[in-house]
Amino acid sequence: MIITGINAVNEALESSVTIEKLYVRNGLFSEKIRSVVKKAKEKGARVIYEDQQKIDMIFPHEKNQGIIAETTEFIYTDLKTLLSVQASNRLFVVLAGIEDPHNLGAIMRVCESAGVTGVIIPERRSVGVNEAVIRASAGAVMHVPIAKVTNINDALRLLKEDFVNVYAADANGTSIYSLKLQGDIAIVIGNEGKGVPELSKKLSDKIVSLPQNGKVNSLNASVAAGIIIYEILRQRLTL
Amino acid sequence: MIITGINAVNEALESSVTIEKLYVRNGLFSEKIRSVVKKAKEKGARVIYEDQQKIDMIFPHEKNQGIIAETTEFIYTDLKTLLSVQASNRLFVVLAGIEDPHNLGAIMRVCESAGVTGVIIPERRSVGVNEAVIRASAGAVMHVPIAKVTNINDALRLLKEDFVNVYAADANGTSIYSLKLQGDIAIVIGNEGKGVPELSKKLSDKIVSLPQNGKVNSLNASVAAGIIIYEILRQRLTL
Repeated sequence: MIITGINAVNEALESSVTIEKLYVRNGLFSEKIRSVVKKAKEKGARVIYEDQQKIDMIFPHEKNQGIIAETTEFIYTDLKTLLSVQASNRLFVVLAGIEDPHNLGAIMRVCESAGVTGVIIPERRSVGVNEAVIRASAGAVMHVPIAKVTNINDALRLLKEDFVNVYAADANGTSIYSLKLQGDIAIVIGNEGKGVPELSKKLSDKIVSLPQNGKVNSLNASVAAGIIIYEILRQRLTL
Repeated sequence: MIITGINAVNEALESSVTIEKLYVRNGLFSEKIRSVVKKAKEKGARVIYEDQQKIDMIFPHEKNQGIIAETTEFIYTDLKTLLSVQASNRLFVVLAGIEDPHNLGAIMRVCESAGVTGVIIPERRSVGVNEAVIRASAGAVMHVPIAKVTNINDALRLLKEDFVNVYAADANGTSIYSLKLQGDIAIVIGNEGKGVPELSKKLSDKIVSLPQNGKVNSLNASVAAGIIIYEILRQRLTL
């Protein structure tokens, strides 16, 4: 989606729309432009300065006054809406800091295939739904509601208040194959390098692990998520 | 590993060593050089022509006569050695055309964690073990024997002669959750886009699938491999 003009761009920045790139004409300057650029940067947009001629080449069909934004059309859900979904055996996937767009894309494919209720990601220290994620997800990202939250731990507290069993995936926990994974479940998957944050682990009802027989013993985050989510699906299918 | 000089490079090309890049000095020419370059290209090496000065900059510690090869130190196993491994419940993973180094790396991590007997990949139309794969595998690639074969279908025939049950992963097969995945097993994972080749499917004892509840229904190759391999592991653990 292309948004042109300072006011439209400003409005988009106030909404849940994600701006990927903001093109600004070299030399364009005003208080308002400065405020928009600042806001765009804070929201994680890439700000690119170009000459008007170059901007017109990139967007030949768009009339613009030197400011033009490229957005993904992805709209996040809010957590309350996600929690209000009526379903038996709800399954939430909480991604506590996935950084690699390929991993987020691959996890969204699993979530879509397994029919999870929704995904929760944090606003910060995490990749959001950008073009690389949409591509890696083979479009799956469009079919699974994703809530972006300010604080993952607050989200875990809300899930628990709503009687959801929260399981954090980590080494040195209980083997998922020894557990009856029933009822409403939220599975917490951590950052690729650092795993699930300590406080999130403490807030979880259980730490769950995959048995590992090797020397390196580090599964890719999306693969680990896939194995755990499908084990929950398997247990539900064979109930 | 760095190999310098026409004879050493030629020898390496005849061995099981994988040459990643072959640097050749601009203007260097002889029948022998031409033959080595041809062989290197056939074996999938990237041939790079540079001036001697640039080559000396890239390899400041190597005396060279204008020809220098960079190899991964990865040594493939042969299929016979792999098949001679004595183990109860052998598990082979046959990768029929994985192209993305991230996928091969992620699959090697699963294979290492699950303790599979060995992996089989084809020489052609498949990524081999290169630096990107080693990186993506977090080193796991060094702990799982990989056989590189000329023909995947011949390998499947040999596996079957050796009483290994061959299961091809594909949509529209039997749900893996309805199967008793016991005894010696080879699981065939196809190319990211095209899946398992038709003839390989025909040679397989069964087509196995993961249940899918969504609209897009396409799991990433490494995630699908992970889920299937861990389901086999689960069934063995809970026997």
